[in-house]
Amino acid sequence: MKGHSMKQNKYDEPEFFAKYSKMGRSVGGLDEAQEWHAFRALLPDLRSKRLLDLGCGFGWHCRYARQQQARSVVGVDLSEKMLVRARATTNDPGIEYRRSAIEDIDFPGDEFEVVISSLTLHYVERFDLVCQKVYRCLAVSGAFALSVEHPMFTALAAQQWCCGLKGDRLHWPVDQYQQEGPRHTRWLADNVVKYHRTVATYVNTLIDSGFRISKLLEPEPTPEMLVEQPDLKDDCRRPTFLLIAAVKAPTR
Amino acid sequence: MKGHSMKQNKYDEPEFFAKYSKMGRSVGGLDEAQEWHAFRALLPDLRSKRLLDLGCGFGWHCRYARQQQARSVVGVDLSEKMLVRARATTNDPGIEYRRSAIEDIDFPGDEFEVVISSLTLHYVERFDLVCQKVYRCLAVSGAFALSVEHPMFTALAAQQWCCGLKGDRLHWPVDQYQQEGPRHTRWLADNVVKYHRTVATYVNTLIDSGFRISKLLEPEPTPEMLVEQPDLKDDCRRPTFLLIAAVKAPTR
Repeated sequence: MKGHSMKQNKYDEPEFFAKYSKMGRSVGGLDEAQEWHAFRALLPDLRSKRLLDLGCGFGWHCRYARQQQARSVVGVDLSEKMLVRARATTNDPGIEYRRSAIEDIDFPGDEFEVVISSLTLHYVERFDLVCQKVYRCLAVSGAFALSVEHPMFTALAAQQWCCGLKGDRLHWPVDQYQQEGPRHTRWLADNVVKYHRTVATYVNTLIDSGFRISKLLEPEPTPEMLVEQPDLKDDCRRPTFLLIAAVKAPTR
Repeated sequence: MKGHSMKQNKYDEPEFFAKYSKMGRSVGGLDEAQEWHAFRALLPDLRSKRLLDLGCGFGWHCRYARQQQARSVVGVDLSEKMLVRARATTNDPGIEYRRSAIEDIDFPGDEFEVVISSLTLHYVERFDLVCQKVYRCLAVSGAFALSVEHPMFTALAAQQWCCGLKGDRLHWPVDQYQQEGPRHTRWLADNVVKYHRTVATYVNTLIDSGFRISKLLEPEPTPEMLVEQPDLKDDCRRPTFLLIAAVKAPTR
């Protein structure tokens, strides 16, 4: 549990937590998340697999994995409030929730066949360390599937469209792309620290840690989602999410 | 040679060719190309290798490969004018120049250990077809290194900074990122057709063709280049080039 004090734990701030709890994906679960259709497609068959979910939040992915007949699931999150909710909405002895910063996980080798992380690793400063730890706890040929906010999205801290005089969205602005590091953004609350990394860094860090890239996705909302939530249409104009599936290669 | 008539051959238009011939990289060669330091780092040891250069232009990479003791080099280009210049500036029986559209190459299997393509594949409509053909003509464990204009750069046909009232460059605009296909751009001349593809498409098409991704780069100019050409500094604000190194995996 060491290291908590150094890491931002925005989700345990009452106001932030209250706002996050009202988001579509917090109320309606995975089907309300616009990138879920793509993330699900990255997952291997989960039947009989031991799965680790890094940044499990309310536990939606953990419960999904068990519905897909995963043998066991461990969900890790830094936020106590998230875990309280996760436990309250989970009635399944096959799922264990643990409180820890993602960088601090310390599982033995060969402990999981699948590791997933949905939209949390852009909060983590040391992606390299996470990749090394995930590599270690995965069985050979095990799968690592992750999603993050797209580097085109995190490059500028403002994370806002460039708008015309009437508020019309002209285009998405990119700048400071090559300057990796913290971005003090405003998302649900002030000063949410995200870590910007380039696409190259995400890909090469995985490869350097021993992974083979099996798929990279920059999904857009599905046509069905656009019917239900027409305001998502601008998310077809620039990539919002970066999803990567990687496999622990049999040999280095 | 079939199919030439369908493909744009801008480099054989006298005005375009004249302008291209005056560019730094055309006069000074590889060291004048801002992405060369990164592209060179992607190449395997070329000693004793048989190398294919797709879109060889003036032959700079072909001659470099022979300086690195490649056994033999084939350079392919659609432009007759480029090949005339390449032949005139090459005095080496180990280099053969052939005229062909890149999509039309038809080499036997196991013909090369290394295939490179520098800043040409964004002119090619069928990247999937090229990947399949490169895969076929490569020996097992052979390397494919390519560079293209970055998808963040090709998304909008204008390929221009968003500028303030005084002409100051505010940021790089991205839009229509998900709409892959032709972009009628202006680069040295009007109506240069480039094909925009997403990063995901570049990566997944390689993987689907049997390649393993070994490195992905989004290089910026080196500090040395910035001293010599200060106007390159804005190329540190957004990625200009996407470089990928891939290896023909031993088994599918």
